Amino acid sequence: MEGVDYHADERSKAEFDVEAMKIVWAGSRHVLEVSDRIARLVASDPVFRKDNRAILSRKELFKNTLKKAAHAWKRIIELRLSEEEASKLRNSVDEPAYTDLHWGMFVPAIKGQGTEEQQQKWLPLAYRMQIIGCYAQTELGHGSNVQGLETTATFDPQTDEFVIHSPTLTSSKWWPGGLGKVSTHAVVYARLITDGEDHGIHGFIVQLRSLDDHSPLPGITVGDIGMKFGSGAYNTMDNGVLRFDQVRIPRNQMLMRVSQVTREGKYVQSNVPRQLIYGTMVYVRQTIVADASTALSRAVCIATRYSCVRRQFGSQNGLETQVIDYKTQQSRLFPLLASAYAFRFVGEWLKWLYTDVTQRLQANDFSTLPEAHACTAGLKSITTTATADGIEECRKLCGGHGYLHCSGLPELFAVYIPACTYEGDNIVLLLQVARFLVKTVSQLPSGKKPVGTTAYMGRAEHLLQCRCDVQRAEDWLKPNVILEAFEARATRMSVACAKNLSKFSNPEDGFAELSADLVEAAVAHCQLIVVSKFIEKLQQDIPGKGVKRQLEILCGVYTLHLIHKHLGDFLSTGCITPKQGSLANEQLRSLYAQVRPNAITLVDAFNYTDHYLGSILGCYDGNVYPKLYDEAWKDPLNDTVVPDGYHEYIRPLLKQQLRTARL
Amino acid sequence: MEGVDYHADERSKAEFDVEAMKIVWAGSRHVLEVSDRIARLVASDPVFRKDNRAILSRKELFKNTLKKAAHAWKRIIELRLSEEEASKLRNSVDEPAYTDLHWGMFVPAIKGQGTEEQQQKWLPLAYRMQIIGCYAQTELGHGSNVQGLETTATFDPQTDEFVIHSPTLTSSKWWPGGLGKVSTHAVVYARLITDGEDHGIHGFIVQLRSLDDHSPLPGITVGDIGMKFGSGAYNTMDNGVLRFDQVRIPRNQMLMRVSQVTREGKYVQSNVPRQLIYGTMVYVRQTIVADASTALSRAVCIATRYSCVRRQFGSQNGLETQVIDYKTQQSRLFPLLASAYAFRFVGEWLKWLYTDVTQRLQANDFSTLPEAHACTAGLKSITTTATADGIEECRKLCGGHGYLHCSGLPELFAVYIPACTYEGDNIVLLLQVARFLVKTVSQLPSGKKPVGTTAYMGRAEHLLQCRCDVQRAEDWLKPNVILEAFEARATRMSVACAKNLSKFSNPEDGFAELSADLVEAAVAHCQLIVVSKFIEKLQQDIPGKGVKRQLEILCGVYTLHLIHKHLGDFLSTGCITPKQGSLANEQLRSLYAQVRPNAITLVDAFNYTDHYLGSILGCYDGNVYPKLYDEAWKDPLNDTVVPDGYHEYIRPLLKQQLRTARL
Repeated sequence: MEGVDYHADERSKAEFDVEAMKIVWAGSRHVLEVSDRIARLVASDPVFRKDNRAILSRKELFKNTLKKAAHAWKRIIELRLSEEEASKLRNSVDEPAYTDLHWGMFVPAIKGQGTEEQQQKWLPLAYRMQIIGCYAQTELGHGSNVQGLETTATFDPQTDEFVIHSPTLTSSKWWPGGLGKVSTHAVVYARLITDGEDHGIHGFIVQLRSLDDHSPLPGITVGDIGMKFGSGAYNTMDNGVLRFDQVRIPRNQMLMRVSQVTREGKYVQSNVPRQLIYGTMVYVRQTIVADASTALSRAVCIATRYSCVRRQFGSQNGLETQVIDYKTQQSRLFPLLASAYAFRFVGEWLKWLYTDVTQRLQANDFSTLPEAHACTAGLKSITTTATADGIEECRKLCGGHGYLHCSGLPELFAVYIPACTYEGDNIVLLLQVARFLVKTVSQLPSGKKPVGTTAYMGRAEHLLQCRCDVQRAEDWLKPNVILEAFEARATRMSVACAKNLSKFSNPEDGFAELSADLVEAAVAHCQLIVVSKFIEKLQQDIPGKGVKRQLEILCGVYTLHLIHKHLGDFLSTGCITPKQGSLANEQLRSLYAQVRPNAITLVDAFNYTDHYLGSILGCYDGNVYPKLYDEAWKDPLNDTVVPDGYHEYIRPLLKQQLRTARL
Repeated sequence: MEGVDYHADERSKAEFDVEAMKIVWAGSRHVLEVSDRIARLVASDPVFRKDNRAILSRKELFKNTLKKAAHAWKRIIELRLSEEEASKLRNSVDEPAYTDLHWGMFVPAIKGQGTEEQQQKWLPLAYRMQIIGCYAQTELGHGSNVQGLETTATFDPQTDEFVIHSPTLTSSKWWPGGLGKVSTHAVVYARLITDGEDHGIHGFIVQLRSLDDHSPLPGITVGDIGMKFGSGAYNTMDNGVLRFDQVRIPRNQMLMRVSQVTREGKYVQSNVPRQLIYGTMVYVRQTIVADASTALSRAVCIATRYSCVRRQFGSQNGLETQVIDYKTQQSRLFPLLASAYAFRFVGEWLKWLYTDVTQRLQANDFSTLPEAHACTAGLKSITTTATADGIEECRKLCGGHGYLHCSGLPELFAVYIPACTYEGDNIVLLLQVARFLVKTVSQLPSGKKPVGTTAYMGRAEHLLQCRCDVQRAEDWLKPNVILEAFEARATRMSVACAKNLSKFSNPEDGFAELSADLVEAAVAHCQLIVVSKFIEKLQQDIPGKGVKRQLEILCGVYTLHLIHKHLGDFLSTGCITPKQGSLANEQLRSLYAQVRPNAITLVDAFNYTDHYLGSILGCYDGNVYPKLYDEAWKDPLNDTVVPDGYHEYIRPLLKQQLRTARL
């Protein structure tokens, strides 16, 4: 029956105002209004349908993405959308496309690294999409270690040009999105060489394709790198390979905001501080954390709704039990629900941090930069890892049907997981955090006060010997108790690492040998940041009936599930006792019971359209089984009753005519 | 250069005889010989190529699988392969196909549940593939809870027939492999109803399609359920949907070995014990554990080889450092390598267990069945979960390139993960184990001696109060020390659960409320089984230079990484002290250093052909980058330099002609 809400009973159980929670999730009433309006616009436009992605061939899929990108641009112009609305629209289309890189990497690279003059020349072209750009950094043999890139840009003073060249196979640019088939231009990272001297990696604007007929310019070999994880997913995108054979570009296409090459071929630094590029990193990673909360919340929304539909075993009024009523289901699902909210709030705080860092940079204050850099690196790492794992866990929580493409979870996973690798491999980033932590610890005796998210280490003396005074399960609901436990754990792990490192005569040998421990210390520190930002959020005024109460419950779930999961850390550092660990677990179980009646409304608060969610299991009205059944028949294999191949490959078997069959 | 081994240096470091290790891995010299010969046969046959799977459309992919299945059957007949060789050949083809279900479920169901007469009628047809069968159990709304299935088989005494019927949408059969487009017959599970009485779920042989033209028989609606996770992967297979509208079958097509319906419609039990079906379960789950070690070892092989090729940061003779030299890489990869070996040995032991159980059943001895059932359920659960997670971890260990389809890891993951759900959802299975453990604990006071893998609980009194006497890191290498720590942990967790359960007035309420803790206790018990079987293996005579030594190192890695990972368990139960936990970690690091020079040879010992491995990153000769580069150009998107869609969707943007373009 059309229009029936099969989740109505579930929704009626909610103990809070879902509309108010939607505003909290969106960040503001304004953002909610824009998101909601644009998401509905996209959902109602047939060009943006995405339920056919899995059955399109690579070429069809790619062409369909080109169509959507062009259509999106057309709608943006026709409707005179603001920058905020346009960005939201691209986001709602929910399909990786070359435009992501054009707007998300090419334009920002020019803005961040180009001179005023360069910006004036290139940005208007890019803004109007008269050129389409990508970001060509990684190479076939080089990823994390940017300083190891092999592509060269050699200055030729004779012609006032740079010669861009790929000296080896492994120097082939590899992975840049939008490069393979679409981009007309790229910001190419290459070793700058003047007069035989290597000045390290710099960015250059290089035209790749003719603006007349789109054919690659002389000396340029470019193509797509082939299929990636999953069906649909990033196969909509032309990640590319690119080789240069002595390609010449004018000198003024080196991005010269920070360092320059003069007409005479002299390499000079400008008075713009190099640290500026770290500001961009903080920005990019902040968006990655925000995206983590979005991706995780989508998966949680699907798993929560379907867990209310699905029934297995037991008995309730003659029906089997809804699987969401099982504690095993709750103990896996609700921590992910809580994590989605936790990541949302830490993402919100990172936006503030970015603004703060930017203002300080403009005032030539670089004092908070190392801490901000470590903090965003670490948060990028732990939120993306938890989200990738969480999406797959949500798929498993949907039982067998989670394996169907139309559950939406396989493609969500396939699209999401690169976030663990791009913009800094998650383990490499945690090692950077660890390095910062060890340095912070080593400076404590000198009286240097740790700042920002490491401020708690200023109380190291106390944190190294404090004892948790939890005596009853409810004591674990006190924010101060939680905070001190996480601070003590993080401090003790960092200090232990520093102590063990000091036993090595060569610190770098020690760092290498103990790196697995260092990663764990970094995780402890980063989890503390998320916990503390969640607690800070709850100290704000949060309007709406019951909204704050729900967030307090979720904060409890988030923090206590971490204690349970990392119990070894808390016990081995003596931060809590086994008895206290067991009380935390008890309290956690009781919180699950409190989440249960609100679960479906807590995911409704994400305000996702069925189009955006892209999941039959997660559809808003809960009418899952008829929709699954109808969906099945759309598969091309069902075009005919007897499959193509029957006469060649099945009938000869059945008729025992295999020897004579032509196979 | 053709024929150059880029891993030659790595291979020369090995401290053991790889040929001897191959025999250990395969299980015997004979099995190694057969596997090796058949794998090479398949690898050299162009019909069995699989590197094009990702770019085939659903229909092409499916048809290609039909072709391979027919070709495999043809080769099996032509070469007069033995059953062992035939099974190995199907396995080496390495592509999910309807034949998996025909041979793996349909035939065994008839063998296990059919009478002598039924076996004589149906098995010869199935063996010759004159009929093709599938296993139709799960329904759209029913998975784990078999007793909840809705399909009915009502006996009609008038005609001596059963009427098979799907009374609701949710009773539609859903998921059976081979059902959608191929199977002519199915073993259908349905509620048996005679004279209005419901006798629960029974199996029936039902013909689905005409043997003349393959069209569905009257009353049967059948089709494919659509795309599943990933590209390639299980999309080669026609998992199906099936509805019955009052379909009539003769009475003698009910599988009647255990219970029967007479001509008069009387329901009677035969003298064959019902427990026989548990024997089949033990068999199926044993194969799943063996498959886990295979899947995990493939992923580990790829990640290990590529970790030797890939270099990032640092410097060694002017080159960057091989990533396998990083302790962070080792601490993630080597425990998975050790797990692959551990699962291999526990799988071997399960084969023995199955034989033992079968012999006992034949002698009407059911005493070991509950323990064997719990043990196989638990091992199925923990090995498949660890393998699924491990494959994805291996993908991440390959950096960005692991995301390419041609790394082989995306498809390996997509093909593998259903193992966590089918044949018993992993969490549901662990709850069954927990139930058995709690029962075992509760019977201890009565003096009932626990048997088999729970025998250690007979020493509960000692295990509840013993103290680990590790004082130096090397003490953790003693098998007895390890074993006692794992036994103490498992006992204490089970006993604690039993104690907490006793506080509930209704035991089932307690079981539900504490189920998350119960799952953890079950995991502890199952990990102990794997650990103890690894240790038992090492007590055997193992020939070959250095082979046993390598296995001892791997056993140490396997056990100590578990202690590190589950440190919370060991500390909170007081089995070990924080100091001992830290010594375990120290010993683990030292073992990693011992694995390092042997890593590549330890994965060579799996003896996988490049065809079977299906991974450019994992290719035997290590010549990764040229192969990746060449592979890229094969993508259909590279058929043309200017992509299809340029004129419609890119050019209008660049030329600012969007308003006038027809989109």
